Amino acid sequence: MKKSIGKRTILLTHPVLIVGTYDETGRPDIMAASWGGICCSEPPCVAISVRKQRYTYNNIVNNKAFTINIPPEKYVREADYSGVVSGREIDKFKESGLTPVNSGIVIAPYVKEFPVNLICKLVHTFELGIHTQFIGEILDVLVNEEVLAKNGLPDIEIIKPFIYDTASRQYFSIGQRLTEAYTTKRIK
Amino acid sequence: MKKSIGKRTILLTHPVLIVGTYDETGRPDIMAASWGGICCSEPPCVAISVRKQRYTYNNIVNNKAFTINIPPEKYVREADYSGVVSGREIDKFKESGLTPVNSGIVIAPYVKEFPVNLICKLVHTFELGIHTQFIGEILDVLVNEEVLAKNGLPDIEIIKPFIYDTASRQYFSIGQRLTEAYTTKRIK
Repeated sequence: MKKSIGKRTILLTHPVLIVGTYDETGRPDIMAASWGGICCSEPPCVAISVRKQRYTYNNIVNNKAFTINIPPEKYVREADYSGVVSGREIDKFKESGLTPVNSGIVIAPYVKEFPVNLICKLVHTFELGIHTQFIGEILDVLVNEEVLAKNGLPDIEIIKPFIYDTASRQYFSIGQRLTEAYTTKRIK
Repeated sequence: MKKSIGKRTILLTHPVLIVGTYDETGRPDIMAASWGGICCSEPPCVAISVRKQRYTYNNIVNNKAFTINIPPEKYVREADYSGVVSGREIDKFKESGLTPVNSGIVIAPYVKEFPVNLICKLVHTFELGIHTQFIGEILDVLVNEEVLAKNGLPDIEIIKPFIYDTASRQYFSIGQRLTEAYTTKRIK
């Protein structure tokens, strides 16, 4: 039996995306974005949603750039921290012991310790309600060499990223491999 | 050492979202969307990206509505199948043995067997490149009663949804609970 639970922002498996920006004084900042994901294959684009009161909001508007950094399980506290406190009051890189690195190609820093970093140029800004959606074109992806799989791409089983469940407000690790995608041509 | 792997649409943990629509003859269809996620808290909205050649594209444009259905692990083959074959040639509900149910409040069917269903009204359409991003306002969320947790919301550990990794092209299950979100006020 189905039960209506009303208007809820629940998909269960939300990626944990740490957004890297510079503020107007050039100080690097990070923020965990609850809402975001890839939104176009060509040009490759990623979307993140940010409320206007977040410190990150003006940083993206001013610099027209941001990075997306994927934290591994062992950095779950640092990732959570970046979504709890504000860059207005706290130097989150300094407090969390993470290292900002200038991306070089856009005005945004990436997180050295996080093994996958997407370098993004702001290409669209959409007002959706209390959240503004920023669309970033992915200009490059940087990966720690030691987490590359044989196919030259980041290995999820080595990296151990984690997901956020909005219903239980808990982070969960990734479990076992189920099956290869795009292979089921017949169901019976 | 960081290595550049170029412009890639890789975030590692992508939710598996099955989009339900009706075609112009009123036949229900489903499609796995690789790209999508929640994009606004108020009004509650979800984004999915669809290429123009997909059967789902015109269905959404015509009916200005869709559903998002979250498949549990045991339906991984049905979910994959819905992303491999086209509704133009095949009645995917019929072939996969899934049951379409008219959502009632919009012109879109949900998948009865999938325990979480978001009923969405199209509110924005953004052209991003080869993908069009459809923003749906979430009018209601339906949940199978037997998967509700004590807090009245869907229980991820009972449902066992899974994620898609674009780098390995594999589906992965959810692992163990790590920690509660929004609790790390100090890092040291």
